[in-house]
Amino acid sequence: MKITLAEGAGGVSTARLISEVFAKHFENPILAGMEDAALLPAESGRIALTTDSFVVTPLFFRGGDIGRLAVAGTVNDLLMRGATPRYLTAAFIIETGTDTDTLDRIACSMAATAREAGVLIVAGDTKVVEGSGQVFINTTGVGFVPDGVEVSASRAQAGDVVLLSGTLGDHHAALLSARMGIENQIESDAAPLTAMVQALLSAGIHLHAMRDVTRGGLGTVLAEIAEASSVQIELEEDALPMTPAVKSFCGLLGLSPLYMGNEGKLIALLPAEEAEPALEIVRSSPYGENATVIGTVTAGEGVTLRTALGGIRRIGPLVGEGLPRIC
Amino acid sequence: MKITLAEGAGGVSTARLISEVFAKHFENPILAGMEDAALLPAESGRIALTTDSFVVTPLFFRGGDIGRLAVAGTVNDLLMRGATPRYLTAAFIIETGTDTDTLDRIACSMAATAREAGVLIVAGDTKVVEGSGQVFINTTGVGFVPDGVEVSASRAQAGDVVLLSGTLGDHHAALLSARMGIENQIESDAAPLTAMVQALLSAGIHLHAMRDVTRGGLGTVLAEIAEASSVQIELEEDALPMTPAVKSFCGLLGLSPLYMGNEGKLIALLPAEEAEPALEIVRSSPYGENATVIGTVTAGEGVTLRTALGGIRRIGPLVGEGLPRIC
Repeated sequence: MKITLAEGAGGVSTARLISEVFAKHFENPILAGMEDAALLPAESGRIALTTDSFVVTPLFFRGGDIGRLAVAGTVNDLLMRGATPRYLTAAFIIETGTDTDTLDRIACSMAATAREAGVLIVAGDTKVVEGSGQVFINTTGVGFVPDGVEVSASRAQAGDVVLLSGTLGDHHAALLSARMGIENQIESDAAPLTAMVQALLSAGIHLHAMRDVTRGGLGTVLAEIAEASSVQIELEEDALPMTPAVKSFCGLLGLSPLYMGNEGKLIALLPAEEAEPALEIVRSSPYGENATVIGTVTAGEGVTLRTALGGIRRIGPLVGEGLPRIC
Repeated sequence: MKITLAEGAGGVSTARLISEVFAKHFENPILAGMEDAALLPAESGRIALTTDSFVVTPLFFRGGDIGRLAVAGTVNDLLMRGATPRYLTAAFIIETGTDTDTLDRIACSMAATAREAGVLIVAGDTKVVEGSGQVFINTTGVGFVPDGVEVSASRAQAGDVVLLSGTLGDHHAALLSARMGIENQIESDAAPLTAMVQALLSAGIHLHAMRDVTRGGLGTVLAEIAEASSVQIELEEDALPMTPAVKSFCGLLGLSPLYMGNEGKLIALLPAEEAEPALEIVRSSPYGENATVIGTVTAGEGVTLRTALGGIRRIGPLVGEGLPRIC
């Protein structure tokens, strides 16, 4: 069945769409109330809150889809502050002409990713706009930060190392391949990093700053941390991990992996003396097998890259377009 | 300046848009952190969480704009559960070609409405998609429900009255007028109802169920409450308040005020013996001067309307399209 404006009018058709597609997959007692607002039991610790809209095209791609992205992206943002992710809201803006089977596949993927990430989808909204089959999803996440946990982009320190949890560029290269009709085996890395971060926190690793490497890429994320923490970050080009497929894809198209987005990778800045145990924990976590230390933090400012040939290059945040609509 | 895909790429242009438009208007210490997630101090009571996307067209209309709507709509959803609204996230999906002056006006309106409603905008997101100047906004709200407060669509009881806080159809008629190019003085009623609901709660009125009368209109909202509470709701057609302008507008176009959306009106179902003090409180609150009792709750099921001529008509939820994109 194709979505029409009736499904967005707030009456019987909207209720049917919600119950037959979204509520079916997201089922839980809090959502089942179908009230104006969900009520959540209070938990100890500060509340972490984050929001993200997803407008990726195409909706389905090798290794993932907009639904997996919408859950993983928001869950990862909560994790980057040291929060335990607990609840998501999911709001859909659906263009007319979208097939309900498409929505069903997206909702199914969201539900599976939410289960993996340990969150419940407790509130939602559905709007319909004129168009031709595109779907936009906003997810907003709520988590709780245990007392004593302080992870912030402003807390990186000289003496820290920069740990990267895996290979760069996978999501971006997969999207670009799909968009350009290039046949290859590159898969998006879209994934929730709950298990990885919770293992680091449980082990007592002193995580100073974390960021997931998304839109804007590693260069932008590190430039923001260097500025917020007033430190210098020195990267080793040789240390930047990429799969052979992504490496040759970047080489062919002249793309810099420093500005390509992932959707299931993080950087963690933590004391050098904890680098070994932290690496071990991440490598034995889901999605962390290729983790490595890619640089160090020193006094100074900005981000520098020591190239494979021994030169030093300044790295700024992304300027210009990048590839739009990767998330 | 016109928005291009660069403003959505997550790099320097995105950061500039955020700081020069959104952060400027929404300024507060929590948002200023610009982290992956905002951290909020824990408060007592259960957490209320709600999400809503706004896709209204046109973006500006008599009596309001998409920004005021996006704040008021989500704040009102929190209030309908008896929550004290505290925080909002704001996520923008902006079509290319949108003028930054347009975004500035919207952000300014959101900031003013948030101040009026008593909430802080603490986290945000900006995406850009190809298009021609439309803006979509998602707001997600967090509030806290004091212990002992239990307001739910499932708690209406026989013996309750239905209080409506003001005239029906204003927002819907204003939007339809703008869309059809009809010149009149009808204004949208978009408004946050914080002061009204908090006055009712402070006075100890036993609010059983509340709903704001939005998409789907009074008929849909009451049908949902009747079903969730397993009661019958009897309305008096003569009691339904409308401004003369909206009444004649509906008459001319053959529209039923029962299915027209407002954005600053609520219904409250509460014990008949508290109707007088509740009415007095609402009438002396902002946006409540035309409040009135429109019906009663009895044992039975469904919603009935006693017409001006004395007949009884069954009222179901909205079937079909209504007017799309009123919010």
